Amino acid sequence: MDTPFTPISEIGEFGLIERLRQSLGDAAHANRLAVPIGDDAAVAAIGNGRAQVLTTDLFVEGVHFDRTFAPLRALGWKCIAASVSDVCAMNAEPTLATVALGVPNNLSVENAETLYTGIGQACERYGLALAGGDITASARLVISVTVLGEADAERVVTRAGTVPGEVVCITGDVGASAAGLQLLLKGKEALAKETPGGDGAADRRAPELADFPVPIERHLMPQARLDRVRLWHETGFRPTSLIDVSDGVASEAHHLSVASTVGITLEAGMLPVHRQTMAAAELLEERAEAWALYGGEDYELLFTTPKDALSVLPEDAYAIIGEVVEPEEGVSLRMPDGNVIPLDPRGFTHF
Amino acid sequence: MDTPFTPISEIGEFGLIERLRQSLGDAAHANRLAVPIGDDAAVAAIGNGRAQVLTTDLFVEGVHFDRTFAPLRALGWKCIAASVSDVCAMNAEPTLATVALGVPNNLSVENAETLYTGIGQACERYGLALAGGDITASARLVISVTVLGEADAERVVTRAGTVPGEVVCITGDVGASAAGLQLLLKGKEALAKETPGGDGAADRRAPELADFPVPIERHLMPQARLDRVRLWHETGFRPTSLIDVSDGVASEAHHLSVASTVGITLEAGMLPVHRQTMAAAELLEERAEAWALYGGEDYELLFTTPKDALSVLPEDAYAIIGEVVEPEEGVSLRMPDGNVIPLDPRGFTHF
Repeated sequence: MDTPFTPISEIGEFGLIERLRQSLGDAAHANRLAVPIGDDAAVAAIGNGRAQVLTTDLFVEGVHFDRTFAPLRALGWKCIAASVSDVCAMNAEPTLATVALGVPNNLSVENAETLYTGIGQACERYGLALAGGDITASARLVISVTVLGEADAERVVTRAGTVPGEVVCITGDVGASAAGLQLLLKGKEALAKETPGGDGAADRRAPELADFPVPIERHLMPQARLDRVRLWHETGFRPTSLIDVSDGVASEAHHLSVASTVGITLEAGMLPVHRQTMAAAELLEERAEAWALYGGEDYELLFTTPKDALSVLPEDAYAIIGEVVEPEEGVSLRMPDGNVIPLDPRGFTHF
Repeated sequence: MDTPFTPISEIGEFGLIERLRQSLGDAAHANRLAVPIGDDAAVAAIGNGRAQVLTTDLFVEGVHFDRTFAPLRALGWKCIAASVSDVCAMNAEPTLATVALGVPNNLSVENAETLYTGIGQACERYGLALAGGDITASARLVISVTVLGEADAERVVTRAGTVPGEVVCITGDVGASAAGLQLLLKGKEALAKETPGGDGAADRRAPELADFPVPIERHLMPQARLDRVRLWHETGFRPTSLIDVSDGVASEAHHLSVASTVGITLEAGMLPVHRQTMAAAELLEERAEAWALYGGEDYELLFTTPKDALSVLPEDAYAIIGEVVEPEEGVSLRMPDGNVIPLDPRGFTHF
């Protein structure tokens, strides 16, 4: 009897997650989970009205990062920041982290130390204790990060909870990380052409990376918006639904739409884009809006709220970028000319 | 200025962990950690006299497992059981797990489902909720498991805490997992020789795997000794120091010795070895004691206690295999003829 071989690319990442959830049996539905599998992080009650938040991420060389241009200290930082961002996306505060490392033999002790310096700096920045981990051999560098967080149970915010009539907001500008990646890739390409055998001329078209510190830093050492989560706690503000922008605004808007059973209309003209991101798009002949919508890894927080509730927040702590509409309207983008077009979820797909 | 390149093999896994701990700065020493990095799992206080236990493990294809003879369901089971064993080694009860998966393109959806069936079965067996995870592409199959556990803070047992005069005990027999691995490797070898081009005769020397169900199951689907931890809780028994046998009894005895600043003398003649392990050693012309001391992956619990305290336990729940002695006596093995020889830590090294 032959077992069928269905390539994972045929059903995609989210199709696979659904199939695996079914394979798990009762383990995925245990009643100690306050939020089931599928949000940014898992949530479990721990008594005293407190909830625990748990997230895990795997970063694989050649898939998530390129050691030829990502400095190891930045890489260590980014792995922690990305997981902290998932905890922020539940409106919780991070507490502990563990790191499991798969180490190839072309990584030196000094390299590993540099990586851990970045990990340690990010842990300090976000108030995390690094509680332990695992180190093993591996053909390629693999970094698995787990972050624990806590929050008052009633403060936890998931992807579900918004209703038509609310506004969609973002905590900062988007597209910068994608711009930074493209700039770095062009820089790497130019460098390759300078080596013997290259034509030695192409490098004149290479971007001056020093002109774009914001996109490059956003790509290499992104910040989790724990500052915003803390501001929300201080002011008593609580979003009605929440997700972090790891796969692009378009993809995350679709996640909110599915989890909350609503439609979402984003305003193309209102997406905050940094001027260096705009300048990079011009230089590289790309579209900054595409980076903003589909780029990902910005780690800003996308959230919904009744518009009135925003009054407790300083105006520079968010931008309104759209509205929550009826589910049958789907997820769409209103162009500056008033045309409304369906918004493709795209975003990065692994398979 | 050149950065030195020190190969990790030069300082070994434990040397590397120490260097990385230093690179982390304050993050590794945060005062919310009740037990610092380096035990089987991290421990943090969560209030109400309760402690939380956190462990993470990375399993890499070609390093930790071989898909040509480890069925995927067994592999899923084993990754969970191994991490649960680390929680047991703190005398705690597991509660939640997350799994991050790096998936190569030669793994089908059906393969992934089989893997998750095993993960789900192990979670159910040990009372764990699978709280979430991450799925990404990867050149080789990579499985990262994080398990959370809880215990009354005063019940937590670390590797430190034993004193000379106590006895060293084990919860079951050892060496079976190493025997199982050798049997499976011989079976694979024989199979390879049966293919066209093989000499077709060698397979007569291959072991009948059906004669060795215990070692093979112990290797492929080991059990974490949560049953023993629960028995200890029910009877009020608390070991003075505790570790699980993932790297071999010899290596683990060294860990207890270092953490507790004691010497340990093991009795070679008292190591419990299953009769199928003995039979496999005879068949394969190997030494069962070497498997017991250096084999690892048995996931039995190695613990110390004043001898009197054992009276609350049923006699078949442990075996006394040695004694705790003065630190200057080091870790040694008393042979059946009375000779005492220093015991090499060996065990599996990745680098």
